[in-house]
Amino acid sequence: MSSTHRREITGFSNPTVKYLRSLREKKHRKREGVFLAEGLRLLTDARECGHVPKTLVMAKGRDPHPLLDALEADVAAAGGEVIETSSDILSKITGKDNPQAVAGVFAEFDTSLAALDRSKAKIWLVSQALRDPGNLGTMLRTGDAVGAGGLILIDDCADPFSVEAVRASMGAVFTQQLAQAGWDEFVDWLRQGDGQLVAASLRDAVPYRGAPYAAPCFVLVGNESRGLPEDYEMACDLRVTMPMKGRADSLNAAVAAAVLAYEVLDTLEA
Amino acid sequence: MSSTHRREITGFSNPTVKYLRSLREKKHRKREGVFLAEGLRLLTDARECGHVPKTLVMAKGRDPHPLLDALEADVAAAGGEVIETSSDILSKITGKDNPQAVAGVFAEFDTSLAALDRSKAKIWLVSQALRDPGNLGTMLRTGDAVGAGGLILIDDCADPFSVEAVRASMGAVFTQQLAQAGWDEFVDWLRQGDGQLVAASLRDAVPYRGAPYAAPCFVLVGNESRGLPEDYEMACDLRVTMPMKGRADSLNAAVAAAVLAYEVLDTLEA
Repeated sequence: MSSTHRREITGFSNPTVKYLRSLREKKHRKREGVFLAEGLRLLTDARECGHVPKTLVMAKGRDPHPLLDALEADVAAAGGEVIETSSDILSKITGKDNPQAVAGVFAEFDTSLAALDRSKAKIWLVSQALRDPGNLGTMLRTGDAVGAGGLILIDDCADPFSVEAVRASMGAVFTQQLAQAGWDEFVDWLRQGDGQLVAASLRDAVPYRGAPYAAPCFVLVGNESRGLPEDYEMACDLRVTMPMKGRADSLNAAVAAAVLAYEVLDTLEA
Repeated sequence: MSSTHRREITGFSNPTVKYLRSLREKKHRKREGVFLAEGLRLLTDARECGHVPKTLVMAKGRDPHPLLDALEADVAAAGGEVIETSSDILSKITGKDNPQAVAGVFAEFDTSLAALDRSKAKIWLVSQALRDPGNLGTMLRTGDAVGAGGLILIDDCADPFSVEAVRASMGAVFTQQLAQAGWDEFVDWLRQGDGQLVAASLRDAVPYRGAPYAAPCFVLVGNESRGLPEDYEMACDLRVTMPMKGRADSLNAAVAAAVLAYEVLDTLEA
């Protein structure tokens, strides 16, 4: 493949390096409306879902790969920029000691509820005040696995476009739909159509095994340390609880969502 | 309560502060045979499981609490040290911006397989080459929730005594037994008694729902990016697979362990 359209960057202080590096901070991502994703597998997932990076950054000395060639051709065809740089500089950009050989800058998605088509899937994950980007990415990954339509982030959650969340999603940030909304806005939207809202809860709850799940089922989990506000739980159609055999009374939020989502999947597929 | 046995530390450069801060690094923990845990809830869990800190560090200006008084009395009675310091210094010790009001230094536990009594529980979690301390702590927390006996770490795993793992375990590091061993050593130990080894796997696997689980059931998950080596999977008594409806072929390791462990729990309790 011709490399004439590639731009090479050799200096750490290059303005493009500074720009790319700044995208690890939320305020810069929001201002630019873009986010960073790294790794050939993730970028290939993105490509197959129709997401072409605006900028592709490749490490010199990488192993050649036909998927990388295809990616580069797409970026060039779409008028994007292809940058070649050192592993060290790529490492500085992504903040990872052992960087992948490639990273991309993508336009952020529309995360309005209006863009969600609830009829597209039987399961949707909903998370309230989720603070940990790793948990957020893990929930996206779980959503992909259970065939969910996407993840709805309620109230003040971690940024789904952070490097940590994108990394933990293992590409699911491109396959799952994402929406962000306040609680009232979400409930208004939900009640305009079909949808069962199910909370993992300890209050007035039935066992999660064999509960009467119905599609489209919206699986709601709360904040990592505080759980869900009581009035949110009470607004749900169903409250379910998982066995707690030990001293603790709760699971990690991403774990709770996964155990519950797999149970819902089993019920809805039966 | 009398405070005459308390020692106050006001300077960041105090040798005790340096010592406590050094415990965030594995090499220092191993040399000293101790680890750090933070937060009243976690330290209370520890206390109720019979673990008294060698050193208790409390922030000045904390809210008084009867559980904290009880903790302090235990530490003093056991000949341990009670230190009072500023929130800023406590924050420097634990590496957390919003530190809890209290932290403790505990002796590391015996993590030999010989110390495990497999008859104590129907479920045991086993993790191979688990690299992420957050995942490790989450698995401990899940183990507590499903009534597992403990977590067995195979090959080169993250340190269960790291601040991150202890924090993510939400106290389960004190309620779950911990063992560390190489694969061959683990299999030798396992085959000396009852025990079904079950792998989350894609090879020659049966659906995880309704699989013939038997107690004591050892639930094995592999490394975050590589999964389990094929020969490890083939040494298992049962290989099970979870539905994967999306593009991905795997779940987060801690999520896979949890979904599987809850299924095993349901089967063994039926």
